[in-house]
Amino acid sequence: MNKKLQFLILMLLGLVFNPTYAQNKSAFKVIPLGTKGGLDESNLSAYLIAPAGSENFICADAGTIRHGIDAAISNQLFKGPADEVLKNKIKGYLISHAHLDHVAGLIMNSPDDVKKNIYALPSVIAVLRDNYFTWKAWANFANEGDLPRLSKYTYVSLEENVNKELMGTEMQVTPFRLSHGPGYESTAFLISHGNASLLYLGDTGADEIEKNTQLEKLWKQVAPLVVKNQLKALFIETSFSNKQPENQLFGHLTPRLLMVELNKLSKLTGVEALRKVAVVITHMKAWDKEEEYLVNELKKNDSLGLKLVFPEQGKLLEF
Amino acid sequence: MNKKLQFLILMLLGLVFNPTYAQNKSAFKVIPLGTKGGLDESNLSAYLIAPAGSENFICADAGTIRHGIDAAISNQLFKGPADEVLKNKIKGYLISHAHLDHVAGLIMNSPDDVKKNIYALPSVIAVLRDNYFTWKAWANFANEGDLPRLSKYTYVSLEENVNKELMGTEMQVTPFRLSHGPGYESTAFLISHGNASLLYLGDTGADEIEKNTQLEKLWKQVAPLVVKNQLKALFIETSFSNKQPENQLFGHLTPRLLMVELNKLSKLTGVEALRKVAVVITHMKAWDKEEEYLVNELKKNDSLGLKLVFPEQGKLLEF
Repeated sequence: MNKKLQFLILMLLGLVFNPTYAQNKSAFKVIPLGTKGGLDESNLSAYLIAPAGSENFICADAGTIRHGIDAAISNQLFKGPADEVLKNKIKGYLISHAHLDHVAGLIMNSPDDVKKNIYALPSVIAVLRDNYFTWKAWANFANEGDLPRLSKYTYVSLEENVNKELMGTEMQVTPFRLSHGPGYESTAFLISHGNASLLYLGDTGADEIEKNTQLEKLWKQVAPLVVKNQLKALFIETSFSNKQPENQLFGHLTPRLLMVELNKLSKLTGVEALRKVAVVITHMKAWDKEEEYLVNELKKNDSLGLKLVFPEQGKLLEF
Repeated sequence: MNKKLQFLILMLLGLVFNPTYAQNKSAFKVIPLGTKGGLDESNLSAYLIAPAGSENFICADAGTIRHGIDAAISNQLFKGPADEVLKNKIKGYLISHAHLDHVAGLIMNSPDDVKKNIYALPSVIAVLRDNYFTWKAWANFANEGDLPRLSKYTYVSLEENVNKELMGTEMQVTPFRLSHGPGYESTAFLISHGNASLLYLGDTGADEIEKNTQLEKLWKQVAPLVVKNQLKALFIETSFSNKQPENQLFGHLTPRLLMVELNKLSKLTGVEALRKVAVVITHMKAWDKEEEYLVNELKKNDSLGLKLVFPEQGKLLEF
């Protein structure tokens, strides 16, 4: 065997067995269209999620759509124009709850959109149907509710803990109920492709504040996936800093409460396994210096040494 | 009289009788917080209006608030921070109709806002009360509707053609009904300070398409103000270009239809008088090259030689 061939074979073997290379092979790509929790209308919760190598995205929450697509185009993640991205890349919407900062982009972009599904729990569909797509707040682009129904969107009711195909994508979803303040239901979506999963939580309070066990139940459901290293990322909110009085959280988390919850999860999975999951912090209600403060607080409160990720509008994440 | 004093008196007389100076003295300042008609969530209809020399603004429509305030701060129109501008500079909201692209900013900024009035026709208040501030779409920050009522906002019902004081400002408002598609009511607001007025129209179709006489009636009301040179500016929408089929206007105007309507107004006022009114084009549903196309079409269709103004987010206008 000549020297050149020997060298080539060694190179290839090195590539295959290089642990860095193996670790870097991602299962999902996520393009945040909006990341913040309210106020600034240009950057509200919305995350495009697709399996690595696919362009068939589901959109988890839909606070800001158009302005986020514009940002993604600026960063050359899409070619554009924006309305083609809206129509062709987004195959459907997963809505965690119907507060305006999670649905405004979907509603306002509906005139430019094409036929697709909106997946949500029945309580969330009820608000879209009875409050927004009513001809009073907006034309009824959906297939239920006030007449005439333009039927561009088809509501697909999800059932807790029941797996559903996400049409037009290579992914499935399983929803779990969350508690977002007294009597207000929000949703966690477990999104799967093959053996890999990603967990996206809508707004949620901590069990100790909400006085229930919604998150504890969720952690029990997903712990086996963490243990098997199949859960690649966990998107969870931290709306307020620890300075926010705990009787004024309005169904949201702080760094302290986030870590209380993730400590519970780590008890079920072991710390090492949980450290492999990217913990993506969503829905911060803080800007400029206050945002820096909240990020620092999160890092300080992260006694488990978790992999915290701070998403940015229009910037690709891979897990 | 010495030479210096003679010179000073001549200077002062020159200033008082200088026609340029007299013309340039503006009655209103307007800071657009958002100017476009839908899709891009960062730039939706909202206009801060105050008498020249005052910082007590009324906000006409409220599609985008926070992102517009940020733009105005960048342009040094306000000192900031943004939440202080929201709280202290905006004294109340005038809502023309309750489509989401005209109210999203008001609703989503409500947690940071302070006590103020929302002025609107009863049909508009009904949608805010029954669809948005319901605890389902958003916490009820208003003083009517679903319990508990947080009463940060007080609904003030307006009556057509009846003048009302805008609390905390030096202005009054008189509303007139508009037709925004079949059976959907929108509003024109005549905003006055002393003898000077500014007319802000919410979304509206043309009489010939809407099959009614709402605009004709409005033109009759405001024509005397145009004749007396008291109407300083007329904010009116042109959502679509003339390419849009006229059976698909959804209660909006095109350049052709705008000019049909303004020709009617000019018949009542004379062309010369109308040429002195700034015609501010709002709510364009066009971006990039399509926007250029629409602007060019407006200029070409402007056979009366009117003073067309194209507002930009966060940039001061004076009338």
